[in-house]
Amino acid sequence: MAYLAEQGTLHRTPIGDFPTEAGATVVGAEIAYRRFGEFRGTAYANNVLVVEHALTGDSDAATWWDGLIGPGLALDTDRWCVICTNALGGCNGSTGPSSPHPEGGAWGSRFPALSIRDLVEAERKFLETLGIYHVHGIIGGSMGGARTLEWSLMYPTYLNAACVIAVSARASAWQIGIQSAQISAIIRDPDWHDGDYYDICRGPVTGLAAARRIAHLTYRGEMEIDERFGTIAQQGENPLGAYRRPDQRFAVDSYLDYQGIKLVERFDAGAYVALTEALNRHDSGRGRGGMNKALYSSAVPTMLVGVDTDILYPFHQQEHLSRNLGNLLGLYKVVSPVGHDAFLTETRQMDRILRMFINKTTDGAEPTDGFGHDPEGVWAI
Amino acid sequence: MAYLAEQGTLHRTPIGDFPTEAGATVVGAEIAYRRFGEFRGTAYANNVLVVEHALTGDSDAATWWDGLIGPGLALDTDRWCVICTNALGGCNGSTGPSSPHPEGGAWGSRFPALSIRDLVEAERKFLETLGIYHVHGIIGGSMGGARTLEWSLMYPTYLNAACVIAVSARASAWQIGIQSAQISAIIRDPDWHDGDYYDICRGPVTGLAAARRIAHLTYRGEMEIDERFGTIAQQGENPLGAYRRPDQRFAVDSYLDYQGIKLVERFDAGAYVALTEALNRHDSGRGRGGMNKALYSSAVPTMLVGVDTDILYPFHQQEHLSRNLGNLLGLYKVVSPVGHDAFLTETRQMDRILRMFINKTTDGAEPTDGFGHDPEGVWAI
Repeated sequence: MAYLAEQGTLHRTPIGDFPTEAGATVVGAEIAYRRFGEFRGTAYANNVLVVEHALTGDSDAATWWDGLIGPGLALDTDRWCVICTNALGGCNGSTGPSSPHPEGGAWGSRFPALSIRDLVEAERKFLETLGIYHVHGIIGGSMGGARTLEWSLMYPTYLNAACVIAVSARASAWQIGIQSAQISAIIRDPDWHDGDYYDICRGPVTGLAAARRIAHLTYRGEMEIDERFGTIAQQGENPLGAYRRPDQRFAVDSYLDYQGIKLVERFDAGAYVALTEALNRHDSGRGRGGMNKALYSSAVPTMLVGVDTDILYPFHQQEHLSRNLGNLLGLYKVVSPVGHDAFLTETRQMDRILRMFINKTTDGAEPTDGFGHDPEGVWAI
Repeated sequence: MAYLAEQGTLHRTPIGDFPTEAGATVVGAEIAYRRFGEFRGTAYANNVLVVEHALTGDSDAATWWDGLIGPGLALDTDRWCVICTNALGGCNGSTGPSSPHPEGGAWGSRFPALSIRDLVEAERKFLETLGIYHVHGIIGGSMGGARTLEWSLMYPTYLNAACVIAVSARASAWQIGIQSAQISAIIRDPDWHDGDYYDICRGPVTGLAAARRIAHLTYRGEMEIDERFGTIAQQGENPLGAYRRPDQRFAVDSYLDYQGIKLVERFDAGAYVALTEALNRHDSGRGRGGMNKALYSSAVPTMLVGVDTDILYPFHQQEHLSRNLGNLLGLYKVVSPVGHDAFLTETRQMDRILRMFINKTTDGAEPTDGFGHDPEGVWAI
C-alpha cells in the first residue's frame, strides 16, 4: 500500500504524462486529493469510497457534504476511507489551466480540452499510483455524477457499486446551450486574452461572475428563488427609478451578483471553462453504439438520485437512466424546492439515501438512519 | 372617428409628451401601429380587438400570428378590426432609444426606464388619439400578456374581455435574474457606450446576440431542443477536438448563434434593454395593496392560457392567476414540447382557444373552430 495523505489534508500525487481522449497530452499531470477515514484492506478488497465533486467543488468533501461524511455519519469515516480528488482541469491542486506549464508560464490556452472520461481516467491513474486497484463504491452528484456514471461504464470491475446523483446519461442540447452561454460570457471578457491572462491581468473575473449568475439560476429552483426574493428591492437601492441603473437593483440581482463575486474569489476562469467544456462533452453513448446500448451494458449495481425541481438536470433524465441502466439498485427522488443544489443542501434526505446505498451494497444489515425513521420513507421507485 | 391607417400598413401617431410611471418624460412620443379589418361602431361600442406583441415582436400581428388573424380565421378580420401597436420603447416605429431625440441624436441613455404600465398607458393615449375609448377585447402573450393583464387592472371599463397568455402576475425573481443576465450581456459589450452608441458604432451586437441566446433557451422546451439537436456536431465542425474552439460547435450552439444573428438583424440593443427592463418591473400588485388583492379586484372577464412546458412562465404562474383573478373566463393549457413559444407556434390549439375567447365574450353563438371538432376539446380547467 502506497502512502496516503494525512486525514483531511490536501496532497498532490503525480500521475505522469496524461493523454486525453481527443489526442492531446497534459505533461506531468498531478492529482490533488483528500482522504477521510483509515484505509483498511488490500489493493483489490478494501473500504474505499470515492466521492466525486461537482463543477466548482473540490476535494474537501467533508465540508461541502457537511453532515454526511464523518464519524457515525452516512458515509461513516470510522468504517470507510473516503477519498475525494480534485478534478483534472480544475484549480484546487490538480493540474489545470492555471498550473505552471513545464516550459514556463501557466498552461492557459495550451491546456487541452477534457472530457468527463478524461477526468475519470486521470482519477484511475491516481488511484493506481496510490496502489488502489479496486474500491467499494463511487458516489457523486452533478459533474461528480457524470464521472461516477462514466466510471461504471469504463471500469465496471473497479467498483462494487455506484451512486449517480442529479445528472443525465449525456449532456442535453439545452445543457450544452446554457453551458456554452457561460463559456461565451467568459471568453467575451476583454481580460480573457484567449485564456492566457495569468501573467497579464487579474483575469476575466467579470465574465466569470456573469457565467456564475447564469449557472446559479439553473442550480436553484425557480419557486424557491421567488419565495426568497420576489420583486423586493435590494436594501438601500431603488430598481424602479426613472432611469435604469445597474447599481439600483432588485434583491435577486444583488444575490446573484454576490454568487458571482464569491465564485471569483475561489475559482479560476480558465478552470471553469475547461470543466464546463468537459460537461458539454459528457456523452455516455459515444463510441459505445449509442447511449441506451451503453447504459444497458452496465454491470455495476447503480443507485440513481434526482431532485424533483432540478432545472439543470430535470428528473426525467434520471428516469431515463433508470429505464436503461443494466443493473439498477433503485431510483430515489429528493423532494425539495431548492432545485439542483438540493443534493448538497437537503442533508436529511441525502443522509437516508446514502445510508441506503451503503446498506444495499454491503452485508444487508439493517441501516441506521440516525433519525429513528424507516429510511425507505424517502421517495423511491 | 379619426383616420385609421390603411389595412396592414404601418402608421405613426403622435401622442404628445409622455410622462412615465417613475417620473421621467418621453417628449413628443409616437406610437406606430397596424390594423387588420374594418372598424365598425362608435368610440364606445365597436369591433376593435387589440393584440399585444411579445418582447421582440411588432405590430405586424397578422404575420407573427399567421393563421390566426385574417378573414375567416380565429380573429376574423371580416368581423373584427384588429389593432396592434408597437410598444413604446421598441424599435419598430414607436418612440424608443434609437429614435431621434428632439434636441438631436438618438435618445440613447436619455430614454427613461419604462414599466409595463407605461406601455399600456401609451397605448391608451394612442387609442384615444384615434378616437377609440373602448374596445371589445385585448389579447396578448408573454410581454403582450403582461400588458393585457395591466390593461384589465388599469382600465377595467375600457374593454369587455381580456385574453392573457403565457405570463405571470408579476416578474418572478428567477425571471428578473435571467432577464438581468441578458441586460448585463449587452451592457458589458464594449460597443454599448452606456447606451449612446447610435452615432459611434454598429452597436453592441455581440452582447445582443448573447442575450438572445440565453433568452431563447427560456423560450423553448428543453426536451424539444434536445430532440432536435442532442449532442450532434454542427455539419463540418468538430466540437470534440483536442482543444476547445468556438468555431467548432455542437449543432445546438450553431442554432443558438443563428438565433442571435437573426435578432441582431432586426432589433436594436437599446430597445431590447428598455423592454426587458419593463418586464423586470412587471408587478400587478405594485401600489394596489399587493398582487392577490389587485387580481381579486379585477372585474374584466379574463381568459388565461399557458403552456405545459414553459420554462420562462411556468404553468403554475397561470394557475396562480386563475386562483386569484376576480372574473375568470377559464384557464386553458397549450400542450406542446415547444415551451413558451408554443403560443406562437401551436396554431391549431391557439385557433381553438381564441375562437372560444371570441365566443365566450360575444353572443354565445356556437363557435366554429374550422376543424369540425368540439373546441372544448382543448385542455381546460
